[in-house]
This record gives sequence, structure tokens and C-alpha cells, in this order.
Amino acid sequence: MRNPLREVWASGGYVLNGWLHIPSTWSAELMGYAGWHSLTVDMQHGLQSIETAIQMIQVISATSAVPLARVPWNEPSVAMRLLDAGAWGIICPMVNTAQECAAFVGACRYPPSGYRSLGPTRCGLAMGATYAEYVQRANDELIVAAMIETPQALENLEAIASVPSLDMLFVGTGDLRLTLSGTTGRDGDDPQVEAALDRIAQVCAARGLIAGLFTSSIAYAVQAVRRGYRFITIQTDGSILRESAQQIVRDTHKQLGA
Amino acid sequence: MRNPLREVWASGGYVLNGWLHIPSTWSAELMGYAGWHSLTVDMQHGLQSIETAIQMIQVISATSAVPLARVPWNEPSVAMRLLDAGAWGIICPMVNTAQECAAFVGACRYPPSGYRSLGPTRCGLAMGATYAEYVQRANDELIVAAMIETPQALENLEAIASVPSLDMLFVGTGDLRLTLSGTTGRDGDDPQVEAALDRIAQVCAARGLIAGLFTSSIAYAVQAVRRGYRFITIQTDGSILRESAQQIVRDTHKQLGA
Amino acid sequence: MRNPLREVWASGGYVLNGWLHIPSTWSAELMGYAGWHSLTVDMQHGLQSIETAIQMIQVISATSAVPLARVPWNEPSVAMRLLDAGAWGIICPMVNTAQECAAFVGACRYPPSGYRSLGPTRCGLAMGATYAEYVQRANDELIVAAMIETPQALENLEAIASVPSLDMLFVGTGDLRLTLSGTTGRDGDDPQVEAALDRIAQVCAARGLIAGLFTSSIAYAVQAVRRGYRFITIQTDGSILRESAQQIVRDTHKQLGA
Amino acid sequence: MRNPLREVWASGGYVLNGWLHIPSTWSAELMGYAGWHSLTVDMQHGLQSIETAIQMIQVISATSAVPLARVPWNEPSVAMRLLDAGAWGIICPMVNTAQECAAFVGACRYPPSGYRSLGPTRCGLAMGATYAEYVQRANDELIVAAMIETPQALENLEAIASVPSLDMLFVGTGDLRLTLSGTTGRDGDDPQVEAALDRIAQVCAARGLIAGLFTSSIAYAVQAVRRGYRFITIQTDGSILRESAQQIVRDTHKQLGA
Amino acid sequence: MRNPLREVWASGGYVLNGWLHIPSTWSAELMGYAGWHSLTVDMQHGLQSIETAIQMIQVISATSAVPLARVPWNEPSVAMRLLDAGAWGIICPMVNTAQECAAFVGACRYPPSGYRSLGPTRCGLAMGATYAEYVQRANDELIVAAMIETPQALENLEAIASVPSLDMLFVGTGDLRLTLSGTTGRDGDDPQVEAALDRIAQVCAARGLIAGLFTSSIAYAVQAVRRGYRFITIQTDGSILRESAQQIVRDTHKQLGA
Amino acid sequence: MRNPLREVWASGGYVLNGWLHIPSTWSAELMGYAGWHSLTVDMQHGLQSIETAIQMIQVISATSAVPLARVPWNEPSVAMRLLDAGAWGIICPMVNTAQECAAFVGACRYPPSGYRSLGPTRCGLAMGATYAEYVQRANDELIVAAMIETPQALENLEAIASVPSLDMLFVGTGDLRLTLSGTTGRDGDDPQVEAALDRIAQVCAARGLIAGLFTSSIAYAVQAVRRGYRFITIQTDGSILRESAQQIVRDTHKQLGA
Repeated sequence: MRNPLREVWASGGYVLNGWLHIPSTWSAELMGYAGWHSLTVDMQHGLQSIETAIQMIQVISATSAVPLARVPWNEPSVAMRLLDAGAWGIICPMVNTAQECAAFVGACRYPPSGYRSLGPTRCGLAMGATYAEYVQRANDELIVAAMIETPQALENLEAIASVPSLDMLFVGTGDLRLTLSGTTGRDGDDPQVEAALDRIAQVCAARGLIAGLFTSSIAYAVQAVRRGYRFITIQTDGSILRESAQQIVRDTHKQLGA
Repeated sequence: MRNPLREVWASGGYVLNGWLHIPSTWSAELMGYAGWHSLTVDMQHGLQSIETAIQMIQVISATSAVPLARVPWNEPSVAMRLLDAGAWGIICPMVNTAQECAAFVGACRYPPSGYRSLGPTRCGLAMGATYAEYVQRANDELIVAAMIETPQALENLEAIASVPSLDMLFVGTGDLRLTLSGTTGRDGDDPQVEAALDRIAQVCAARGLIAGLFTSSIAYAVQAVRRGYRFITIQTDGSILRESAQQIVRDTHKQLGA
Repeated sequence: MRNPLREVWASGGYVLNGWLHIPSTWSAELMGYAGWHSLTVDMQHGLQSIETAIQMIQVISATSAVPLARVPWNEPSVAMRLLDAGAWGIICPMVNTAQECAAFVGACRYPPSGYRSLGPTRCGLAMGATYAEYVQRANDELIVAAMIETPQALENLEAIASVPSLDMLFVGTGDLRLTLSGTTGRDGDDPQVEAALDRIAQVCAARGLIAGLFTSSIAYAVQAVRRGYRFITIQTDGSILRESAQQIVRDTHKQLGA
Repeated sequence: MRNPLREVWASGGYVLNGWLHIPSTWSAELMGYAGWHSLTVDMQHGLQSIETAIQMIQVISATSAVPLARVPWNEPSVAMRLLDAGAWGIICPMVNTAQECAAFVGACRYPPSGYRSLGPTRCGLAMGATYAEYVQRANDELIVAAMIETPQALENLEAIASVPSLDMLFVGTGDLRLTLSGTTGRDGDDPQVEAALDRIAQVCAARGLIAGLFTSSIAYAVQAVRRGYRFITIQTDGSILRESAQQIVRDTHKQLGA
Repeated sequence: MRNPLREVWASGGYVLNGWLHIPSTWSAELMGYAGWHSLTVDMQHGLQSIETAIQMIQVISATSAVPLARVPWNEPSVAMRLLDAGAWGIICPMVNTAQECAAFVGACRYPPSGYRSLGPTRCGLAMGATYAEYVQRANDELIVAAMIETPQALENLEAIASVPSLDMLFVGTGDLRLTLSGTTGRDGDDPQVEAALDRIAQVCAARGLIAGLFTSSIAYAVQAVRRGYRFITIQTDGSILRESAQQIVRDTHKQLGA
Repeated sequence: MRNPLREVWASGGYVLNGWLHIPSTWSAELMGYAGWHSLTVDMQHGLQSIETAIQMIQVISATSAVPLARVPWNEPSVAMRLLDAGAWGIICPMVNTAQECAAFVGACRYPPSGYRSLGPTRCGLAMGATYAEYVQRANDELIVAAMIETPQALENLEAIASVPSLDMLFVGTGDLRLTLSGTTGRDGDDPQVEAALDRIAQVCAARGLIAGLFTSSIAYAVQAVRRGYRFITIQTDGSILRESAQQIVRDTHKQLGA
């Protein structure tokens, strides 16, 4: 039982992560065939119930992508349920203090590292591990990622990053920008966000954490990897579908002179 | 109560139609915001139950797109249920004879034109029509499209096209090619299909029918409009999502030299 | 294992039947607490998939109402599935000939009376019967009802009514009116329909069949019972909900002078 | 992007609000055709998962009713998810202190007014607004309503009402009565509740807040409007369906002398 | 309105409880026919959304089993929703202090005993009680069970057991073992767990509480009853299905010499 | 792209097949971990909609079991949809004549062997094949099985078995017994069925077809393999769950002397 993402990182690589808002096993499986290293079922801004989220994790297991999930909020029960269902990692939004981070991480780790409740309903089976093996390996293999998306989180960055058993700082670029500068806009054109991203990358590097972020553009994704980010989410399934369909419609009309 | 697609055609325009395989109201609504004139919920090669298909029709009503549906086979009950749910038209696969066409058309028309059963559960409400108005206008406004996708259908083309109350011949390009030449491939490189497409366009023009087709490429869509096709389906939601996501993954890796 | 509706009729009573279009176990259960003798899950003009229809039958079992179902069309597989799921009877639309009636009835009866396939997945359990008991009793207890809703059916009325093992002629008043007189309107104001209703009641009386119908008004329901009808459907869950809600909104505005 | 309910209130009107317990897009859409100004998807005492709640919001968008939602408890994640899905306002039960109120309001407002996370997945699209426009307008247009339903809330009424960015005090009449007088009963016959309702109306009037309440009777709704309440919920979809169906059954039996 | 489980205990009996992880009304109903006194819909380690959990409770009502539910965490809203839906009792995981226990119990009891919100959507109807009767009887009849599964809970055992209106201490044997001894293994072979089980039984006996536990073996269930446990959960639907199917496959191969 | 079942048979082995009635991806996946060579999603006597059936096929792809499906009736559209979704084979009930068999087989084979419509939505992707490869290999790899379950089918046995491109005769033992002898009972105690089974095995052996059957007992499964049957279905998920749970309850009571 070995988390494939840890192997990518161990060999110096970066992870391209797809983001799932559409509550459907079919769109999830299609994304699983698109080449992403991992897929995150987003229960914060996505439209899934926990039951559909679990079904999406089930079908992703049939593809080469590694299923992850974002919890809607720093609530232990949802994180535990998604792990029991076979998620290889959990991303938590709005982690603003070390205390919040510890509460989140604890929900994802079995005792004595945390307070995750024992009930590996699907996860062991889906990972090819026995019950005992899963319980023994889970704390080392599952990925726990705290989102940095407010000025408060930046103030507490080192403390958050120092919480034991945390694996990743994941930047919510949209929220971070809104809270830092009060604006929305294109990735890359806000100096405060840019400065924060550099600092987060440094903090991660110093502590052996993975730095991750969300972006809507390939160019920014490329730049992020070059800045040391190694977990890169690009768009969502929904935005890819809508924008690509829009482009097809526009291009067809344009070529027809309409 | 007026079918918006009839107005497009009345003004000489063509219809760009999206094709829905993903069983989700969210992907359906996103496609509804992408600029398509109409969206076809495909119950033949798509993954929806009738209940989800109906929910997709419900949400499409909230967008500017006109909801249509393809039935899985020439079976009257599914066509009637989709019309009751608010579809503005029905596409039927594998219509190979005039008799089959008449059976299909009859399922979509109230007596005396056909044998559709009376039970406009949602359609009238969703179209802003009273019960009486819906029953009175339905036969004139709803669109009935027979798919031409076999040599047998080509043999019977004029007879099929002559079935009263039929609105459209819709070409299943993939099946037509497989049955005509035994091959799969790119749109446009099979001479038998090309010849058939021209003939179908002529038959439609001669009888005042709309000619429609399915294609996976913008270039072929453009060409089809120039050949007289006025109902053009380009790809499916699923293929758009998968291929666009694949492109994003590939482009990112490429720019990073990976 | 005894069908409660047969006991109502055996004691000379009439059955008030609710009609379910909303695909939800909660609305179904609520209707089960409203006093109806039976509830018909309508898969013709209702919005349920077979799976939801079955779930509705499941929850109706927890109430005092007897679960029935209408199939979308004269197709054997759906009738058999609904019976396997625990429906105590099946109503089939658009039965126009004795041959069609025999095909329908056969789908609902085990050999040698019919050709229903053996697989009583839920029905025995839900009816408190052993497997053997269910198979032995089903042909006698389950109710099979053919809908009369066209001039052709009226022509063949005696023949249809003579099909062995049929229990009920159920009048689709809306369709019958549309096909007889080409109109829609209020129950009771079409002389051809009225004449047909009387004749159907007589044919049923002569052959020991139950006469049933659908109406949207209490007054007509009352009149139907007085004419000998003993299975009376009044409105649908959806129309009750919408019209009652409308009435509440209107009355409130009215009392406020708005 | 303008909340239609604000326009009703701006012109001095009152809002009649329907209440949705049935987890179905079809019952939701039917209620959308019944004339209510708004419909509240109730996730506290209703039976919906978040996913179905979102689908109900989707279909309500196709009707003239304005979709709102009640969260199951004062938990930020559900409020945010429902807003992302296109709810035009959120009602929160059991708000007993100013601190609880501020926590709730903050979850519904973008920074700097609150701490709502940025991810307008559906809401902008459904409201015809660009991403930037939605983010800019949301804090002004969305409605935030705190429920007053305990003696503790009454003690803290002025403080709760003074929380910035709050729009409405909504009275949970059933809970208020149970907690005030320990009884259940008909609206209007409990003096403590009546006194509280007057006081709440006054506090709202003094601070420019909307006063709202839940009632099961038209008479009480009318009275409430006359007392200054401008957001009136009457019954639930489920109670309307069950009681109306019961009435039909009873009336039919009665007219038949049964 | 009388909780059947209270009658079992009043007559000195023990309750055998089934445990539901599969999110399906059919597996739930099948378990309802298997002879269990009660069935617990597990929303902690099971895969159900709240909506499916409610549907499962609905169908269990049609069987002889009493529906209970486990909440995913000590969160009031889920407990209240499950009670509104007709659960006859709630089990809460990870209750470690008297304060946590009081918060949980309060969520399950109407004022003045607790702070459960009034909205008995389904529960009264399903239990054959009027609205007033349900509200009056609920606090006495519904069962509230706190799980003991950590050393901290053992330290606070008497205090937890002394929380007014609590009915049961339910031992999470797997978690208790992991937190006490850091191991997984077979029921019965960990002395610390065994000692804790005896102590919990004594505390329950002394205070008139029911002692309950989860086990995966019949032998341990039998032993538990002999030790005074009167609410015994054996395996889950999922583990029964998988292990029994595995046994069938193995036995067949074995008999065939494969 | 190679059907794993064909490899089992090519090496002289037999296939143990699980049977799925519970409409859930979780029970399906659990059965996928139980050691069955294949799992058949049964849409005849099972409770799945087509959409859930497809989701079950999706998750079975993540296990070692090969997904198959039984269609509810000899209707082409459902067979095609299940194949498009990734079923590796289709079983059709009640095939009574060579003509019916040819209609069924034709629905499962691409032209020129049959009339399956081209639209491999999921199947190619799920089998690791390109679009072209899937279309080329499908006719050879997918398994097509006709059920023999009536005297009429026995009369036409050789003709049915001679239909080109058919792979298997699958005996519906329950229906065959009911139609042959008018009884229900234990497998093995009806001489007419036993004689039929021997004859079917011989006909299969003579024509290179696989002989398959359904049984509820391990002993009969073993015997069937010894008689030459190489596709053996034992019980259903539902019966395994219910009977095993019943056994647990009974054994516990028994050991307790209750």
C-alpha cells in the first residue's frame, strides 16, 4: 500500500490534479482517463452530496488517477468519511491558525497521531490492503493538505506549516486575492498574491512540505511548477466543459461568418 | 407557444446542437450556458435513466437552450415520456423504413395525426401554455427527427422522407459509415458517406425537411452548413470534457518539457 | 396473502385511488397517510425511473395504502419488474384489441395462465408470504387492469373484456375524449365520453369485471361510483400540490386586498 | 443582478414564500408555478441531501419564484454551498445570540463583510451576472435571515438585530411556542408568542429589517402582514399535499354517504 | 406511541441490532426481514447521504425492525434530521466528556430537556402518533446512546453516564482497542478492552443504562449478553455480504478441487 | 482487448458468477472483492434503473470481476446501452425461438454480424482499447447468452443453439421448472428439469457453446460443473445478505438459549 503521489514527489516530479464539481460518476471517470495524476472531488464549491462524492471516488479507482477530496469546511466527520471511502488525501479550506490546522490533521490520522475513528469501510479493500495493513500504513501514506487563503493564514504560516503530520500547503488563489487585495482578476496580476506565493513556496521547501495551488490557466500552472509548486490544480471539470463548449460554438459561428 | 428552433429556421438560420451523455443536471445546465441553440439529452448512447433525463430537461428550461431528446430505440413510451417532460423535439435512431418512421412519428403526435397519449405533465407548464393550448399547438411545434444510418434507410429514403408530420432527417454519421463501408475514421474521408450526405440534403430540400447530422469536428460542421444542413450536432459533453482536459494536461507537460 | 382491494370489492365497496407522478418516496409516503385505498405509481405520464418507482412501492408498503403501478406502455418487462417489486396490480394504457389485452395480461400471470417470469424478488417478502405461497397465490390476488381510451378499444370492448384473467377496465377519460371528439375540457360535458362510460360500466357488470376511471373532480368521482365504477382515481399528487398551493397564494392575496 | 425580493419590499409589498420538504425537482418546480414569490428549500426539517437541494434550486430558476434555502444548523459550510448553488438568500435556525448571528451572517458575506469563501460555481451564471459582477453585488443582494425561536433569542433580540449586514428576523413560531410556553397548538392562541411577535415586528421596523414568520394558516398569514410582517411562509409542500389529498378523500366519501 | 426496544428491555430481553453501510433501500429492507430487533443506519462509517439514510429509515418502517441511526459526529443538525425522519434512537460516536454527552443528548430531546428543534416531519406520521402526541412522548421514547471508544471516555465514564436523559453507553470496540492498546485484532483478545467492557457494564447496571457494543462475531455477541450487554450489533450489511459471498466462492472451488 | 472469461474457458476452467439485485455501487463493489470471476447486473428481477446499472458496471471495473448484465427482456435498446457502458457480455431471458435468439444476438453485434448501433461511450475507454480497436474486437470478445427457460425453448433448442455468433445457453432453472412441471422447489428434485439440463449441456458441447445456469446452492453448482456447465451463478447479492443475516440472528439466539 503506497500512495502513488508520494512516488511522483519522491522522484522529483510534480502532480497535475483535476478538480471535480460535477456530481457524476461519468464525468469523474472521464477525467480519470484524461491523464491527471490525481482528481480532487470538491465538496466545498462542488455540487456533490457525500454519497455521490464516494461513488466518484469508487470509479476513479478504476482509472490511473489517484482520488483525493476537498472537505467543505474544517469539520472532522466529512474528512473521515471521505478517507473511509478511499480518498488518498484530503484538502481542507480556510485553515487560518495552527490550532485549526492541528484539528484538521488530527481528523485525518489514526491515534496516536490524531483522532480519526476506525472504520476503513472501503479504503483498505480499494487499496489492496488488509484491514491491519491499512490501519498501519494510513498515517504515512494519506496526504493531508491545508489551504492558505487569508491574511490571517499568512500571518500564521510558519506555525501552520509546523503542525506535525501535515503534508501540503495548498493555496486558494481566488480567496487569497480577495482577502488580500479585495479584487478578482487573472492569475498573476496581483503583486500581494505573487509575494505570498513565493513565501509559501519557501516555507514549504524549508519544512519538506509540498506546495500546491489552484489556477485557471496553463501558463500560470507552468510558472507555478517553476516556482517550486508540485501539486497543481488547473480549472474544474465544469469550467473546462463550459468554456470548451463555448469555444466550439463560437468557432463554428465564426467560420460560417455568423 | 412557439418552438424557438422553428424561428431560427424560419429566418434562414442553422441550429448548433449540443449532445448530452453525462447524467447530471449540472453538466446539462453548464452546456445550456455555452451558446448552443438546443441540447439533446441522448438516451441511446448516453448514461441517463429516464428520470435523470427529465431532470436535465427541467434545468435546460432555465437556460436559453431548447431541450430535445434522443430516444434509445423506436419505442413509443420513451418518446411520449420525454415529450410530457418538456422536450421540444425527439430524435429517433435507426429509422430504416417508412413504416418504422410512421410508427415513430405517430408516437410524437396527438390524434388524429398520431397516437401520442394525453398527459402533458410538465410540458405545458414549462412552455408557458395552458393545458388546452399545449394540446392544440403541440403537433405543430414539436420537432420530430428520424435518423438515417443504414443502407436500408438510404434505399427507403424518399419513402421515409414522405411520412407526414416528419420534420427532420438526422444523419448518424458513425453508424452510416460503419454500415456503408465497414470502417471507422474521420468525418469526410469516406466517399460513400459523402455521397449519402449530399443525397439526404437534396431529399430534405425537396420536401421542406430539415437536414441534420452529428459530427465531431468544427470543420465538418461548417462544411455541413454549407451543404445545406441546418441542425448540426458537434461532439458530446463527455468527449468535450475528456479531450479538453487531456489537452490541458498535455500542454502543461509540454511547456514544462516533461 | 390476500389483496386488500379484493376485500373492499368483495364487501361491495369502492376503491379511492391516488395517482403518483412525483418521483419521491416522501410524497408517496405522504399520500399513503391521506386515506387512499390504493396508490398507483404512474410510469406513463409520471416522472419516475423504474428504480424510484420501486422505492415508492417499498415505502407505500409501510402505510395502509395498497401499491399499484401503471406501466408506460404495453411492454412485458416493466410490468414484471413492478410486480416483482411488490405492486399488487398493474394498469396498462392504450389496450385497443383483445390481442393486446392478452399480451398484457399474460405478462402479469405466471404460467400456465401467462408468461410472467419467475423472480419474486421483493413481492413475497413484502406481502408476508413464503416464496411458494406467493407463486401459488399471485395469479389470483394481483389485479390486472386494461385501459380503454380510444374508439378502437370501444369497438373491441367485449373482446377485450373477455380476455381470461383480466380484472378491470380502466377508462383514460382524457385520451378517450381526445380520440372520440377531438376536444379537451371538463369531465362530464362530452356526450360521447358519457355514453362510452355507461357502456363500459355495463360490460364490466356483465362480466364481473371492475370498472375504473381517472377524473380530476370529486363531483365526477361521486357520479362515477353511482354509475357503478368501483375504482376511482382523483387527480395526481402533482396537480393536488400545485392547485392547492395556488389556492393558498390566491386566497391570501385576496384577503389582503392585493 | 438584482434580487427580485428586494424589489417587492422596496415597493412596499410583502413576500409569500413556499416551503420545500419533498426532495424532488418536480415538486419544487410545481411549487414554482403556484405563484409564490419565493421558495425555501428547507434543509433543517426537510428531507433533502445538499445535492438534491441544489437541483431544486436549479429548477426553481426556471420559474418565477426566487430560490432561498434554510440551513440545517448554524454551520458555515452548508450556507456557503447553497449560496454557491444560486440561492438568493439563507435562513438560519436557532440564532440565539449576537455572536451566533454574526457567525452566520459572516458565512453569507464575502470579505471584508464576512468570511464566505470565493467559489461562485453556479450562482453568477444562474443570475445572469459575470463572475466579477456577482462577487461585487452578492453582499448587497443576497438575503440573510436569522430565526428567532427561543426565550434566549428574545432576550438578545436587539443585539441580534444589530448585527451588521443582517436582513431579516424570521420567527420559528412552533419552536418559539414550545420554548416559551411548553405547548403546541394553533397559531394565535398563545399570548406569549403573540407578544413576542409584536415585539419582533417593532424591532425590525426600528432597524429597517424585514420581519418574517412561518404559519400553517392563511388567516394567520393575513394577520401577520397586517402586523408588519413582510415575509410570510405558509405550510410546507408536504403538508399541503397530504392535507389536500386527505380532504379530497374525505369529501368524496362524505358525498357518497360512506 | 411506544418504542418497541423499550419493551424488549422492560421484559428483560436483549436487542440484536443490524448495522447498515450500504446506501440502498433494498439492502435495508432485506435486513429488515432478517430478524434483527433494530437496524442502525450508520452515517459515520457507512456510505449514505442524509437523503438515502432517510429513505432507508422509511422502508425499515415497513418491516418488523426498529430504525435507529448513528450520526457521523457529535453535530446536532444530523441527529435532529434523523429523528425528524423517524429514527427511534440515535447513537453518537466519540463521546469523551460529560459536556460532549450533554450536547449530544440535548440535540435529541425537546425543551425543556434539550434543544431539539420542533419539526416532526415524518416521525409522528410513521409512528402512528398525532403531532401533539409525538411531541409529548418523544423525549421518553426515543433512545439516546453515547459511544465510549477512547481512554478519555473511560476516564470520564461515570460523568458521561450521569448525564440526564441518556439511555445507553455503546462501546466502539475497534476504536477503543486502537486507542487503548494501539492494536487491531479479534474481539476478546485484548485484556484492556475486556476490562473496560466489564467496567462499562457495571456503570450501566448501576445507573439503569443499557450497555451496548459492536462486534464482528457471534461468539462475542453471546458472551456480551452474558456479561450484561443488552444491545448487540453484529457485523455490518457490507461485511456480511462480502464474507458470505467469499465463503460461497471458496466452498464451491474447494468442493471442485480447484 | 481480451475478455478475461474467454481466457478462463480457453484454459478449460469454469466461471463462478455473482448476481446483482441490489441497486448500489457499494454492494456491487463488495461483490467484486469476493472472488467471483464475473458479476451480472440483473435488470430483469433486480431493482436497478439503467443509470444505476451503468454505475455498478463502472465500479466493477475497479475490481477483478468481469461485469456482465442481464437485460429485462429481449429488447435491443437496453442490451446496446449496457454494452456501451462496458458490459463484457449480455444475458437475455426467455429466448424461445431461433428468431428471438437472432434478434437478441443481432442487438449485441456490430454490422455486418448484427445491428448494434455504434456509440461505444464508455466500453472502449474502460477496456483500455482505442475506439477503432474496440469496434474491431467487440464482436469477438463480448459474450452473448440466451436463456433457456420454457418448454418452447427446449423444443427449439438446436435451432436456438445454431444461431450464429451466440456464445452461451444459460438455463433459468426456476422458470424452466415452473413451466415444465408447474412446481417450485429445491434444485435437483425435478426430473424434467434434470433431463433438460443434461440435454442442454450436450447441445452446448456439440456446438462449442458454453452452458450456464442459475442455482441457489453450492452443491448444485458443483454438480453442474461436473455435468459440463462452465458458467455458474450462485444466489443473488440480496439472498446472500438476507439469508446470512438471518443465520447470524438465529445462531446468536440459539447459543443464548432464546
